[in-house]
Amino acid sequence: MKLLVTGGGGFLGARLSRELLKREQLAGQKITQLHIADLVAPPPDLAADARVTAHVGKMLEQGQMLASGFDGVFHLASAVSGECELDFDLGLRSNLDSTRLLLDGLRAAANQPRLVFSSSVAVFGPDPSNPLPDVVTDTTLPSPQTSYGTHKLMSEYLIADYTRKGYIDGRSARLMTVSVRPGRPNGAASSFFSGIIREPLAGQDTVCPVDPDVTHPIASPTNTVSSLIRVFEASASEMGGRLAINLPGLTMRVGDMLAALEQVAGQKVRQRVRFERDERIAAIVANWARGASAQRAGALGLRPDASFQDIIRQYIDDCRTQPGYPAQALDGLK
Amino acid sequence: MKLLVTGGGGFLGARLSRELLKREQLAGQKITQLHIADLVAPPPDLAADARVTAHVGKMLEQGQMLASGFDGVFHLASAVSGECELDFDLGLRSNLDSTRLLLDGLRAAANQPRLVFSSSVAVFGPDPSNPLPDVVTDTTLPSPQTSYGTHKLMSEYLIADYTRKGYIDGRSARLMTVSVRPGRPNGAASSFFSGIIREPLAGQDTVCPVDPDVTHPIASPTNTVSSLIRVFEASASEMGGRLAINLPGLTMRVGDMLAALEQVAGQKVRQRVRFERDERIAAIVANWARGASAQRAGALGLRPDASFQDIIRQYIDDCRTQPGYPAQALDGLK
Repeated sequence: MKLLVTGGGGFLGARLSRELLKREQLAGQKITQLHIADLVAPPPDLAADARVTAHVGKMLEQGQMLASGFDGVFHLASAVSGECELDFDLGLRSNLDSTRLLLDGLRAAANQPRLVFSSSVAVFGPDPSNPLPDVVTDTTLPSPQTSYGTHKLMSEYLIADYTRKGYIDGRSARLMTVSVRPGRPNGAASSFFSGIIREPLAGQDTVCPVDPDVTHPIASPTNTVSSLIRVFEASASEMGGRLAINLPGLTMRVGDMLAALEQVAGQKVRQRVRFERDERIAAIVANWARGASAQRAGALGLRPDASFQDIIRQYIDDCRTQPGYPAQALDGLK
Repeated sequence: MKLLVTGGGGFLGARLSRELLKREQLAGQKITQLHIADLVAPPPDLAADARVTAHVGKMLEQGQMLASGFDGVFHLASAVSGECELDFDLGLRSNLDSTRLLLDGLRAAANQPRLVFSSSVAVFGPDPSNPLPDVVTDTTLPSPQTSYGTHKLMSEYLIADYTRKGYIDGRSARLMTVSVRPGRPNGAASSFFSGIIREPLAGQDTVCPVDPDVTHPIASPTNTVSSLIRVFEASASEMGGRLAINLPGLTMRVGDMLAALEQVAGQKVRQRVRFERDERIAAIVANWARGASAQRAGALGLRPDASFQDIIRQYIDDCRTQPGYPAQALDGLK
């Protein structure tokens, strides 16, 4: 089985690639080739795997590779929200044109490959004609408030149409906000959802820019990766339609995330986080889903993480076992 | 005021252009230039108007013209449903790429022009995860079952994002099925919604390919054109959001359309229509909206046609007064 993971050099894509290589098979077929397309080279452990071929550079310049015939694709590559707001054309190229080039490549190969597209809870937002409900469902009408969310939504519908035509067997899964991400704050407005856990565990003081009563659906990296794989392996009838599905999220109150941190890591760690409202970030977050349900994903057996304590423990465990986590990630626990 | 009507050589675009020229002004500004872009030349009466400039050819080859700076745009140009199903790439180019080239041209001109996009009730359809309600509303979740509907929906969201960014002031209005269209049957599955009125009035026998109990939202050409103009003239706050709105439609049962024909034109005319179910067409129509509401359009003062009798009378009157209607259009009334 020849697989492609776009965005496979990034945090989530690398983690997905690692998990696929570890499982050795997907949907009952042996994984013989794993192609990783990304602007950056994959992490060393992936690059060293004999099954991996890296395609480093812009997807838009790799039309031939994209049409080379894959049995399955995980399409994660994307310019992120902040980038798209700063550079409108870059967003359209990276998110919409690249997706279309990929879809046309798969169509040209004419083997109707399965494709899982990582869409986002960012498709949801408030419009004066369409207020945001407390809980967004699989069938909530999206009204994205960012170019990123717009491109994700447009791609969902494009994939549904390529699927209807029989060119691919595509599925779009909306990722919830992934926490705890490793590494440094990345300037995304959602960065604090990881930062308020990651920085205090590393021994660093940090600021939470929104009120403790803010709620938002969260999923761990492990849960997100296994959900994407389950969506790939689902039959078309299990998917129950061509529209995008919400992946499971644990709807968390920010104050409760910090209470969980205190339970897992102690009061000293918790006290490294102070609330200091950032009006710009708070205004952005006010346009985000306050909660999400995932009925169709539930029918596939997918569940949210059991608790945010579990999510924090997963991060601590990752820091001890996963490649790419900095050595000082848990200095604050000493 | 320099206006652009894309698709202005077509039936509805020409009719809209004619109405704009007759009104002489739009949103309180005098119309000094009306540019018509279409694959075909505009009808002679439009071409003869000193205010009209015709741009005949593919929109995709007219980037410079599209960026020349317009004060207002009606974007009606589109490959129709049947064409898109037959030629997937043509559909993407004609509907999605052309729309993007237009939007980028307007953005480059940097004067934030108002734009009205003619979307379609074809954005709605049934998905196993999203059954079609009896009445589609402004906030019904679309799940298009054609490439045409997919492109219309993607364009709606793209226009909403260009509007959010302040590049244009865009509005998307979903047209209901327009009846009675003049001319010949055009091979579209919806063609019979006009044909079952037009052909018997012209003295020709015709076939209704669906059951009399089929219902569908219908609007007259006059009502559709005046709705598009009203949407253009609405303030942003009157629009009540950036999402697309449904234009008003009269939800008609096919059997009642024919009863109305008999009331207006007599039994002899009505009897020229016989029911002969066409499974292919019936299956397509079964995926269409059975009814539609138009709450936001209603708040703009827009209303469906008063009755289908009125719609038929409008067609008869058009045949006597409007350019481009064939002389024998009413031979059946003799």
